[in-house]
Amino acid sequence: MDTFAARGYNNASLAEIAERAGLTQAGVLHYFRSKALLLTSVLELRDQRDIAQLGTRRPQGLEFLRHLVDTARRNAEREGIVRLYAVLSAESVTDAHPAQSYFRDRYSGLRAFVAEALTEACGLGEADARRVGAAANAIIAVMDGLQVQWLLDPDSVDMAASTDLVVTSLLAGLGSDAADRRLAP
Amino acid sequence: MDTFAARGYNNASLAEIAERAGLTQAGVLHYFRSKALLLTSVLELRDQRDIAQLGTRRPQGLEFLRHLVDTARRNAEREGIVRLYAVLSAESVTDAHPAQSYFRDRYSGLRAFVAEALTEACGLGEADARRVGAAANAIIAVMDGLQVQWLLDPDSVDMAASTDLVVTSLLAGLGSDAADRRLAP
Repeated sequence: MDTFAARGYNNASLAEIAERAGLTQAGVLHYFRSKALLLTSVLELRDQRDIAQLGTRRPQGLEFLRHLVDTARRNAEREGIVRLYAVLSAESVTDAHPAQSYFRDRYSGLRAFVAEALTEACGLGEADARRVGAAANAIIAVMDGLQVQWLLDPDSVDMAASTDLVVTSLLAGLGSDAADRRLAP
Repeated sequence: MDTFAARGYNNASLAEIAERAGLTQAGVLHYFRSKALLLTSVLELRDQRDIAQLGTRRPQGLEFLRHLVDTARRNAEREGIVRLYAVLSAESVTDAHPAQSYFRDRYSGLRAFVAEALTEACGLGEADARRVGAAANAIIAVMDGLQVQWLLDPDSVDMAASTDLVVTSLLAGLGSDAADRRLAP
């Protein structure tokens, strides 16, 4: 995890990973077969820990949205994991990256969770699906984008405060007709 | 630009760049001295084009915020540039990356522009600086985060719609009548 976070996947060397793990390269490859499989294993391990932390059930509605703000707050105390996701999610759009479908699936799953939570929290229906989808993408995006800014300049970025502000403002907007107003013509 | 966008900086090879430009590696290095200098030159060239496109003055207040939504809309038609920024901004947080201060400075400048525009659009004062700063970071973050999602899954992400929704909701949340105004040109 540390090596992928510090160098990205493409630039990470198996030699460095093996050395930090106290193994030979052959030893690492005995367990993971390839650098690509090692990467996806690392990402799956991270996800399992997050799921374990959530306990037996995923929070619903407003509670799930609060969980996202809490995650942004907790993230400010785990720079390594934030860096891992920030670097790898963006790097995954480069040609033939081994984590491309991992991140595509991850966003697709997250998008559905956030949309469901917004729909429940605002008491919306099928007719609002388009606006809810735009809001769900925005909430995920704001959390991701803040991570890069925060990694570069932690004193200028309060990830929890900005996430909270966006979620609160979107909830207020979705809950009323006012959100039909658009900035662009 | 194409090579950095497709591979990231760390994984881009001068040999490939030289071949695509119809030069030898020595020829490329004659003009740019190093891969790192080539990267920063590419980023500066992009910025100059964007500045040239803005014309003689930067739009102010609501007009600047509308310009951001327009940028998100235009970006959906220039995948290469979006990929360049998405990949490199995140990669810049890896160890000793040559574009790290470029992106730190870029975010710092953008943050000031967006905060100024929000302050003007909402008629706010010094007392609101903290909330305005959190909103400015969020607007920049949402634009960045949407790019990664869109690159992975363009059919599921409408960058302009999500950006518009966030800007409009934040304007309303910051306690302004500004969001009521339609911005017909």
